[in-house]
Amino acid sequence: MRAITLTTDFGLRDTYVGILKGVILSIAPGAPIVDITHEIPPQDVMAATLALESSVPFFPRGSVHLAVVDPGVGSERHAIALETSHGFLVGPDNGLFTALLDDEDLLRAVRLTNPRYFRSTVSATFHGRDVFAPVAAYLATGIPLPEFGEAATDLVRLEMPRPVRREHSVEAHVIHVDRFGNLITDLTEETWRQLMPIDPGLVAIIVRGEIITGLSRTFTDVPRGKALAYFGSGRRLEIGLRDGSAALELGAVTGATVTLRAIEP
Amino acid sequence: MRAITLTTDFGLRDTYVGILKGVILSIAPGAPIVDITHEIPPQDVMAATLALESSVPFFPRGSVHLAVVDPGVGSERHAIALETSHGFLVGPDNGLFTALLDDEDLLRAVRLTNPRYFRSTVSATFHGRDVFAPVAAYLATGIPLPEFGEAATDLVRLEMPRPVRREHSVEAHVIHVDRFGNLITDLTEETWRQLMPIDPGLVAIIVRGEIITGLSRTFTDVPRGKALAYFGSGRRLEIGLRDGSAALELGAVTGATVTLRAIEP
Amino acid sequence: MRAITLTTDFGLRDTYVGILKGVILSIAPGAPIVDITHEIPPQDVMAATLALESSVPFFPRGSVHLAVVDPGVGSERHAIALETSHGFLVGPDNGLFTALLDDEDLLRAVRLTNPRYFRSTVSATFHGRDVFAPVAAYLATGIPLPEFGEAATDLVRLEMPRPVRREHSVEAHVIHVDRFGNLITDLTEETWRQLMPIDPGLVAIIVRGEIITGLSRTFTDVPRGKALAYFGSGRRLEIGLRDGSAALELGAVTGATVTLRAIEP
Repeated sequence: MRAITLTTDFGLRDTYVGILKGVILSIAPGAPIVDITHEIPPQDVMAATLALESSVPFFPRGSVHLAVVDPGVGSERHAIALETSHGFLVGPDNGLFTALLDDEDLLRAVRLTNPRYFRSTVSATFHGRDVFAPVAAYLATGIPLPEFGEAATDLVRLEMPRPVRREHSVEAHVIHVDRFGNLITDLTEETWRQLMPIDPGLVAIIVRGEIITGLSRTFTDVPRGKALAYFGSGRRLEIGLRDGSAALELGAVTGATVTLRAIEP
Repeated sequence: MRAITLTTDFGLRDTYVGILKGVILSIAPGAPIVDITHEIPPQDVMAATLALESSVPFFPRGSVHLAVVDPGVGSERHAIALETSHGFLVGPDNGLFTALLDDEDLLRAVRLTNPRYFRSTVSATFHGRDVFAPVAAYLATGIPLPEFGEAATDLVRLEMPRPVRREHSVEAHVIHVDRFGNLITDLTEETWRQLMPIDPGLVAIIVRGEIITGLSRTFTDVPRGKALAYFGSGRRLEIGLRDGSAALELGAVTGATVTLRAIEP
Repeated sequence: MRAITLTTDFGLRDTYVGILKGVILSIAPGAPIVDITHEIPPQDVMAATLALESSVPFFPRGSVHLAVVDPGVGSERHAIALETSHGFLVGPDNGLFTALLDDEDLLRAVRLTNPRYFRSTVSATFHGRDVFAPVAAYLATGIPLPEFGEAATDLVRLEMPRPVRREHSVEAHVIHVDRFGNLITDLTEETWRQLMPIDPGLVAIIVRGEIITGLSRTFTDVPRGKALAYFGSGRRLEIGLRDGSAALELGAVTGATVTLRAIEP
């Protein structure tokens, strides 16, 4: 039985996540169900696609990833299921899977049009329960993707934040602030090598007026209370603060600019 | 092995939920354990019974539903286990299962008096760990209900909020505010049809001075930032706001009055 | 397959916990994974060891307990796995397991030096993902402890808070405030019997100016709104408030002093 992961903006106060699991267990009783997160900010599809990008690659190939951040529920937006080189993706066609499709091969895509795999009544406001959870559960039991509907084309894609090359600098952006107050940017190690082909000791990183010189490897490379820049576990440039929160100390939030400049040796 | 669900007011900061799961795993190692929610406001038995009502019907029949919101722990309140048409319910006899018993057939009820199925020492303050979790786990392994104690009668029932018919209107009440700021009321679709047998386009819904005309089907039926009324996925009248929070925008909390009036065609 | 528990300071907003579970599922697909808590305050190793002490004993013997609160990640601090009379403990060697080692027999300890059981690339900032989760998963599959590295000695231990005997009193300390606002202290029932060998009715417990006379058994022993002192489910002295929060009412936080004095009969 394939594992099923859940990524939603439902939070944990209400019973929506429990309901999804009840529906899944009713169809695929033995499937392991794993929460990725349910604390995506309400309706923040961009945050959701970044969350999926950061976590999906660590699951067994063939897992089923159910994602529900769905401001357009009940409208004419499509419901989709995708088969990629890593596994199956199930959710609304609103760009939720954009960040994953850069890195994974998209093998097949269907629109969920076969009501045989829905709950018998489909509400206008909770397709997570009535469409996506049942489809994910049936996928986990081994039903082949084409059974769920017709081929999907023209998938909706979000415009992802990307670093910008300026004349004398590179402008990156904070795309996520984590629980520790670390600032995660849109600058990947790969893009860094293209845009900043210099010694990592010879770069100044400027965030909200704070100037950090050179890249560190980990937090304990700097004194307590000091800000540092490093390539994080997701291979993105991050700004942290040893034994503290960079976000609080620098007053930085998602969207903040991070400027990189070469400095004199 | 039957699935076991958990509904508590324990929150996720402490280790109480983990302890319940440790006790369950020790008795029923293969039982799937699913969290419904642990964020019931402390000691709010009414919120807990509404949470159970909204979620229990979506689980496989025969599941074991463990609920612990237990302000009377250690006092003379009884501990009970019920067998209903949907599954087993285990918890304190303080009204926690009231909302479920309206819709499900109560087949058998026992008081948990057989210490053979408790932990060897029972504390005065954590029956979740010492009584309810072990009983739920033994139920999941297939021990028949009568083994756990004598027949229970005169179960405690809460007085549930219900809409009131006024001379020219119906007065409903907000019973839950969800994570998205949607206001869920005590008016079900069924009761609506009895109390308001009119065209859904010909009703005015008044909440905190805001007047909503007619029922919508889903959020995208109204412009961004506009309030709407609709029958939600739990078949209750809800007030929402497209791309925003009705609770914040209208300043409404649990207990707020929602007035429905017929309007001229 | 052994169960694996998780205790971290990762919170549930980010995807770090989901990533740990993906790594574990990839190695030990059938292992039950149970969250103890992920809401340890960031980098609070003391809070983590107390959380482990309160919960680990309730899990099946032989379970694998993975704990990651790791301010020194990427530095020269060691990574360890321990075999105790209760089960396996995996995490950084920073004192995280101190409170458990008082009560459990330490059978074997190894430093995690065998990269065969790590992810193929080990980052400098996320050993939870790259070292601890894979080792925990391999332990759950039955790989024997000595396979993971050389014997570890001189484990780091925290200095745990302990009650102090004064001339005419005992001074205990609040070590945790739970979700209900109960104050959990460092005074265990066992230590009480040594330091305060008197009738439990003849003790005054003083917290932030509030004087509580005598010990109660449970909340319903006192009137609503009244503070009480009792030995809690973790066999520690606790201060609670019936139908309310002792922490809010008394303005007490972790670290607050709780003074116990004998009173005249």
